[in-house]
Amino acid sequence: MKKPLILITNDDGVAAQGISALVEGVRALGDIVVVAPSGPRSGMSSAITSEEPLRANLLKKEDGLTVYSCSGTPVDCVKLAINELLGRKPDLLLSGINHGSNAAICVIYSGTIGATLEGCIWGVPSVGISLTDHELTSDFSEAVKYAKTVAEKILQTGLPHGTCLNLNVPNIYPVKGLQVCTQTKGYWNKEFEVAKDQYGRTIYWMGGYFVNDEPNNPQSDEYALAQGYAALVPLQIDMTSYGFLDELGKIMQQ
Amino acid sequence: MKKPLILITNDDGVAAQGISALVEGVRALGDIVVVAPSGPRSGMSSAITSEEPLRANLLKKEDGLTVYSCSGTPVDCVKLAINELLGRKPDLLLSGINHGSNAAICVIYSGTIGATLEGCIWGVPSVGISLTDHELTSDFSEAVKYAKTVAEKILQTGLPHGTCLNLNVPNIYPVKGLQVCTQTKGYWNKEFEVAKDQYGRTIYWMGGYFVNDEPNNPQSDEYALAQGYAALVPLQIDMTSYGFLDELGKIMQQ
Repeated sequence: MKKPLILITNDDGVAAQGISALVEGVRALGDIVVVAPSGPRSGMSSAITSEEPLRANLLKKEDGLTVYSCSGTPVDCVKLAINELLGRKPDLLLSGINHGSNAAICVIYSGTIGATLEGCIWGVPSVGISLTDHELTSDFSEAVKYAKTVAEKILQTGLPHGTCLNLNVPNIYPVKGLQVCTQTKGYWNKEFEVAKDQYGRTIYWMGGYFVNDEPNNPQSDEYALAQGYAALVPLQIDMTSYGFLDELGKIMQQ
Repeated sequence: MKKPLILITNDDGVAAQGISALVEGVRALGDIVVVAPSGPRSGMSSAITSEEPLRANLLKKEDGLTVYSCSGTPVDCVKLAINELLGRKPDLLLSGINHGSNAAICVIYSGTIGATLEGCIWGVPSVGISLTDHELTSDFSEAVKYAKTVAEKILQTGLPHGTCLNLNVPNIYPVKGLQVCTQTKGYWNKEFEVAKDQYGRTIYWMGGYFVNDEPNNPQSDEYALAQGYAALVPLQIDMTSYGFLDELGKIMQQ
């Protein structure tokens, strides 16, 4: 039986600890091809590169593991992999393990999730995985364990077309279990530190903190993470607000 | 009565023809503040800039119109405007008029829509506007007309929290009317031209074409545009696939 082909990418770059941990953790599940950005691309969302050419460098090719770095964004990596480097659609896409949470509204900004959505657009069962910790010395073992569990399930069952998964794992040991959740409602506030550059000109550094609009919703991913559970949110690429279609039609006819 | 405060941004840059046409077209509706990228930022999705500082330059301040350029992405522009430059949330955000279509799956990649979603995250009624034509000499008059109509409605009614609007206007004259639509299902295929750089190394230029998975769906935005109508799609920032929650729960318990 042919082994599954698993495409792995991330937004922290091909040299990040999180992607190495993921590759080792799922290596037994299939033939792995890594196509990941040449350096950090955090916060790149679903950005694509159209005004500059992309480049890919083969870094490693051994039994069951091929590794490329790519000059572009996480989404560029997925597009280049599927269109050019793999020669076919993979059976599974894993993006991560991201250094830092991608729960709640972070799905909109995250390059990890951008890559996951791109796999989904191509009809590939896709999972983004994040550990809620930014430290370089993070322990990825629990995140790897849950990533592998989800990957094994999805390789068996597939996912409905247009749907992918966002897995966040809390930075505790042991994690209490896995919960299927919804995307927590909220936003980032007070986002800038105002400073001066070396010429005295005003500059703005992005920072801020997340405001949770539903801190008591037990189904939300932030709630599950705070309770010590891994949070698995199904995401869809169709952003249409179906519930508002009729009312919008009425508004526009008035 | 105090005039509404209208924030205008785009992803083609502060000097683009489309944003000038939009500003002139809606100027009578309120006090306009433009915070737009210093140059083209197409395909930037909801990317944010966290590793470099942002800068804003005041380009113009006259009665009812203030214009800043910003060094960042479209989403950076909206964040900087709301957090620092405006001093309060605007009553309306308009993003565009984009040079080129943002129908169907382009909502995922578009900086125009990235900025629109960001306004929505802040609870600001937000509309992204695109003309389905890339020519520098495009006629924006019909797109401006429909943008103004939608802006006037939304200033009156507001939008449900978490919902924003994606308006695409076909490049014909006259446009036949406006239809409320859904995001067309589909994807971009055959995306790369493979070429060589000056040293003979392989490079990849992004291109390709859109494959429409539902060409006969009369409610889809691509269908409305092809029939000569402006297409208005309500988008939501909650990407949770609610319809798949229960099944996913069962899969993970097996």
